[in-house]
Amino acid sequence: VPDKLSSRPTPYVVVDLDVLDANIARMAARAAEGGMALRPHVKTHKCLEIARRQVAAGASGITVATVAEAEVFVAAGFEDIFIAYPLWVDAAKGARLRKLAEVATLRVGVDSVEGVEALARNAGLRVARVLVEIDSGHHRTGVPASQAGEVARAAAATGLEVEGVFTFPGHSYLPGQAEHAATDESTALAGAAAALHEAGISADVISGGSTPSAAGTDGEVLTEMRPGVYVFNDAQQVELATCSPGDVALTAYATVVSRSADRAVVDAGGKVLAADRPGWATGFGRLPDHLDARVIALSEHHATIKFPTDEDPPRLGETVRVMPNHVCAAVNLVDELVVMQHGAVIDTWRVAARGANT
Amino acid sequence: VPDKLSSRPTPYVVVDLDVLDANIARMAARAAEGGMALRPHVKTHKCLEIARRQVAAGASGITVATVAEAEVFVAAGFEDIFIAYPLWVDAAKGARLRKLAEVATLRVGVDSVEGVEALARNAGLRVARVLVEIDSGHHRTGVPASQAGEVARAAAATGLEVEGVFTFPGHSYLPGQAEHAATDESTALAGAAAALHEAGISADVISGGSTPSAAGTDGEVLTEMRPGVYVFNDAQQVELATCSPGDVALTAYATVVSRSADRAVVDAGGKVLAADRPGWATGFGRLPDHLDARVIALSEHHATIKFPTDEDPPRLGETVRVMPNHVCAAVNLVDELVVMQHGAVIDTWRVAARGANT
Repeated sequence: VPDKLSSRPTPYVVVDLDVLDANIARMAARAAEGGMALRPHVKTHKCLEIARRQVAAGASGITVATVAEAEVFVAAGFEDIFIAYPLWVDAAKGARLRKLAEVATLRVGVDSVEGVEALARNAGLRVARVLVEIDSGHHRTGVPASQAGEVARAAAATGLEVEGVFTFPGHSYLPGQAEHAATDESTALAGAAAALHEAGISADVISGGSTPSAAGTDGEVLTEMRPGVYVFNDAQQVELATCSPGDVALTAYATVVSRSADRAVVDAGGKVLAADRPGWATGFGRLPDHLDARVIALSEHHATIKFPTDEDPPRLGETVRVMPNHVCAAVNLVDELVVMQHGAVIDTWRVAARGANT
Repeated sequence: VPDKLSSRPTPYVVVDLDVLDANIARMAARAAEGGMALRPHVKTHKCLEIARRQVAAGASGITVATVAEAEVFVAAGFEDIFIAYPLWVDAAKGARLRKLAEVATLRVGVDSVEGVEALARNAGLRVARVLVEIDSGHHRTGVPASQAGEVARAAAATGLEVEGVFTFPGHSYLPGQAEHAATDESTALAGAAAALHEAGISADVISGGSTPSAAGTDGEVLTEMRPGVYVFNDAQQVELATCSPGDVALTAYATVVSRSADRAVVDAGGKVLAADRPGWATGFGRLPDHLDARVIALSEHHATIKFPTDEDPPRLGETVRVMPNHVCAAVNLVDELVVMQHGAVIDTWRVAARGANT
């Protein structure tokens, strides 16, 4: 590991260790205060070293999105894994789940009777406990709370062990909606748990959570939270007012390659920052050292940054730091994270599950 | 290589070889018809096998965006490379360019006097010929045509060899603007070449081109075109009417994991399709087998597809094909491309320069 960043060619992605650790500790305290388990979603960082820090800070296990992510983390010794996704389990995926279950405790999501049957048929009954996914307002996957009993009953009838219900209140990713989304989450999960109860099935796990809604997550209803982004935070979280710029642990380091009176173009484009941009975002990322600047355009290898009239853009060849809009997408573009503490590079961490989409 | 796709877990990315070859042949014919050299931009595919097919079809050399991409292609035997980017050349980058120049002929872009001086100082005078980048209306990098003489003069005064001028008419990526962008490109490049001539420097190479504007590229002015996306095409090109859906050579294969009356959610999200979405696009990609469907939402591992009322969404567990909006960004997310011909898998090609951003 080089001890001077100047020897490393831009663009590269840096994690500030102290900010990371503070973010990990803060969410651990939040979960504890609410009486909830914390099972962080590791799709954000895909990095063994970071997951280990989360577990050391008290996480009860980890959440992943894919079987391939589970394979990477199980191979590294993680033993309690929730695949929070309505898997479609064919014969090949069933065989992979069985192999994982030899050494790890697995939970998987389901949101249809057909999905339950495919899981039972192709993975078997003792491979994973199931959680029924509930749509709490994000309208992506999951069933309405009122239908949770039907899916849970089908699972139980097949012989699968039903552990509870889960949701992702993704509509928290809209300005001013986080509290509202947390209320929806709580209402939907409580309704779903009641529906399971009516079907004679107890919901031991009631799982939700997202980074924007974490402050409002209802510990009276939920037993577990699964936020992911909070370890790093990003420009979206800053603009949603979930965090301050100083809480953003990950930035892309980029070089100014072109410049005019009010603009600088840097060499971190969409192939480093990712092109995610919700309609409400002010641009394609933010600059922690130039908070009034905006990334007004992004192409594969160019970010065009507009500076306010009273601020001179950085000079050609200068290094600038850019916070991605959506850190999960940005991390998935690089093979390693450069770890800094007090301005010095102290390590590099591999993005072990990069591209693990299957 | 498996001979049945069904054994491969979704999501994965497939190239139809016959469509790819037809696209390569069509652009080669277009360039020849206009009396221009074709120097395709390989950042689109990052794949040695595809670049070799382009060269076999008559390409005069290749275009890359970064030194790291050049390193991958030079290591594989490519000898004539244009880094079409206003590089900021520090000592480390200068050393890398010198190493490349031992075995390859290099051209690099410049768009500032400072950039010219850094190149001369840190790479040396005989490492690469320079092309001055011109802003023809995309307003990203490049100088106005009227200032091309100043940059070229600075380069020549330093002792660098100036080979000509280049532009990227990126404003062709707007509906109905391709022809207009081609005219802007031609006007700007002609003006820039004249500015060089006035400075006593001949513009032997006048280079432009983009996939949407390729049909209108002016062979009376330009000596060379550098389109990239045309090898695959994508949903953007379909919606810009640059090509028909049958001309799209690359699709992501995905499984339906969740379903309602008018929607299907598939397992190819932004970590496979990329999140690029210009304001004019109708969604986050298109389905070649369901042209009236729209990808209305995209998250990391979910694409939500809305089907018209008279069409039943595909069933749970079915495989569907999705054309990414921006194929360059999608290819950069995967390690390999699955190559199919006449419905059978015949090869897999490595995305050799994936993540080669520096």
